[in-house]
Amino acid sequence: MNAVNGIWAPALTPLHADLAPDHAGCAAHVKRLLGAGCHGVVLFGTTGEASSFSVDERRAVLEAVLAAGAAPERIMVGTGCCALSDTITLSRHALTLGCRKLLVLPPFYYKGVSDRGVFACYEKLIDALDGGVRIFLYHFPRLSAVPITMPLIRFLAENYGEVIAGIKDSSGEREHTLQLIEKFPHLSVFPGTEMLLPDTLRAGGAGCITATANVNAEAIRRTYDLFLNKDPDAEKSQAAINAVRTVLNRVPTISALKWIMAKRENNDHWLHIRPPLEPLGIPDAEKIMRGLRLGEL
Amino acid sequence: MNAVNGIWAPALTPLHADLAPDHAGCAAHVKRLLGAGCHGVVLFGTTGEASSFSVDERRAVLEAVLAAGAAPERIMVGTGCCALSDTITLSRHALTLGCRKLLVLPPFYYKGVSDRGVFACYEKLIDALDGGVRIFLYHFPRLSAVPITMPLIRFLAENYGEVIAGIKDSSGEREHTLQLIEKFPHLSVFPGTEMLLPDTLRAGGAGCITATANVNAEAIRRTYDLFLNKDPDAEKSQAAINAVRTVLNRVPTISALKWIMAKRENNDHWLHIRPPLEPLGIPDAEKIMRGLRLGEL
Repeated sequence: MNAVNGIWAPALTPLHADLAPDHAGCAAHVKRLLGAGCHGVVLFGTTGEASSFSVDERRAVLEAVLAAGAAPERIMVGTGCCALSDTITLSRHALTLGCRKLLVLPPFYYKGVSDRGVFACYEKLIDALDGGVRIFLYHFPRLSAVPITMPLIRFLAENYGEVIAGIKDSSGEREHTLQLIEKFPHLSVFPGTEMLLPDTLRAGGAGCITATANVNAEAIRRTYDLFLNKDPDAEKSQAAINAVRTVLNRVPTISALKWIMAKRENNDHWLHIRPPLEPLGIPDAEKIMRGLRLGEL
Repeated sequence: MNAVNGIWAPALTPLHADLAPDHAGCAAHVKRLLGAGCHGVVLFGTTGEASSFSVDERRAVLEAVLAAGAAPERIMVGTGCCALSDTITLSRHALTLGCRKLLVLPPFYYKGVSDRGVFACYEKLIDALDGGVRIFLYHFPRLSAVPITMPLIRFLAENYGEVIAGIKDSSGEREHTLQLIEKFPHLSVFPGTEMLLPDTLRAGGAGCITATANVNAEAIRRTYDLFLNKDPDAEKSQAAINAVRTVLNRVPTISALKWIMAKRENNDHWLHIRPPLEPLGIPDAEKIMRGLRLGEL
């Protein structure tokens, strides 16, 4: 059994009209996700528009979520920035508040950097933190353009032992996720989509960290439990969550998830999103309405 | 004549052994570049490792450079971050200190964003600043992966007039730079390499903002002046600066420039660089030594 597993939701970040984070809204959304069956919530992943907020804005949201009663052990905090100094600041802040699980992107401005250079980033981060930290490496080559390669993971794991706790694999590639699980059985490997849940669980992976959990947590959790219990209904349940994901893969996902939340809660504040992302356009909203029955989500 | 023109150096950022910016070193380097003939200096461009520093670190360096006597009108400040809130903070700070020229990258984490989304970033920035600001759009598709397209430039220029003052074109593509100069004659167009200086000046462009100016400012400035004076020696002078650039294009440029400064000043502190970038390796140092006579730089 992996140390950390299950269905984790990278929470959307609700905003006010001036695009400042809505602290009460963030806390309520996290509470809802945990209540809907998510094993945990990631604050400030890609879905949470992490890079679009300042260090101070990110700290304040985490404080608000914890102050509202979320258990620190069920929160994983995204802390990876381009500036090592920012990553260290955010990581120390999370640890001080009892959040030991950190999802850490590598710096993503410079491209074509070496594994040695990326290793040095994690090395300096870990050296600046206390030993209780548990780092989840964030592999998202399509957006960061700085991959976390297999040799880099091996080198980090060899050097830092249990501090390197897992990997979020947002490559979307089945074979890549399966290779990670095979090569690093002691790490918690989370693909970034529930469509890889059956393969992941069969191979011994941890579960998934999936944006769709923001709007479909109950069904994804139920499917996870069915697979774990080897229930014959698991495949049917998986087909239903795949159908939802397939529709959401065809539209700008973060904007679409915020639009669904606005519909569901009848609250247009959910449409606010920081540029360069944009509120969902009407043609994409129509694609969703043709593909999904929102009332069933 | 463009409002802003000439040879601008995107300054390297000297660091202490703990990788904190060396304020005295930064101020001395800027002073040296201005004394060596640069019309101006860009603080916190790509060459200055801008994205590798926190907002507070960037503010402190600018303050130190100005406190040491650099004229604010000869400093252009890189302020574009992924978080609009950070970009606004840095931009207001620069304006407060009398630096009106800002080099602004678009947010660069999310890829495949629309021109509308990028426009919204500049719109919200400009609306948050006083009207005296002069914005230079930073087009560096290889690193930011978010291009500043021609329609976007046109739309910004139409909406904000003289606030949109210029473009740094780090595409490295001659045709792209020439098109910008042709389409936007009222903007100061700076290619990111001195190798495009003759084409740029003939077409009516502004000059260049080039990393190589950190170590070869005198010769680049002399070449610029020769072209402006239609001096027959201009082409020969250009060939010499092209030869230097060609060597530096074959190695990791920022690391190489820091290595050259370390040699020239006999000060290994110049080798410090923030990860994920790395100090120059020996094979690359040998490439430079084979290609350049450092004493002549």
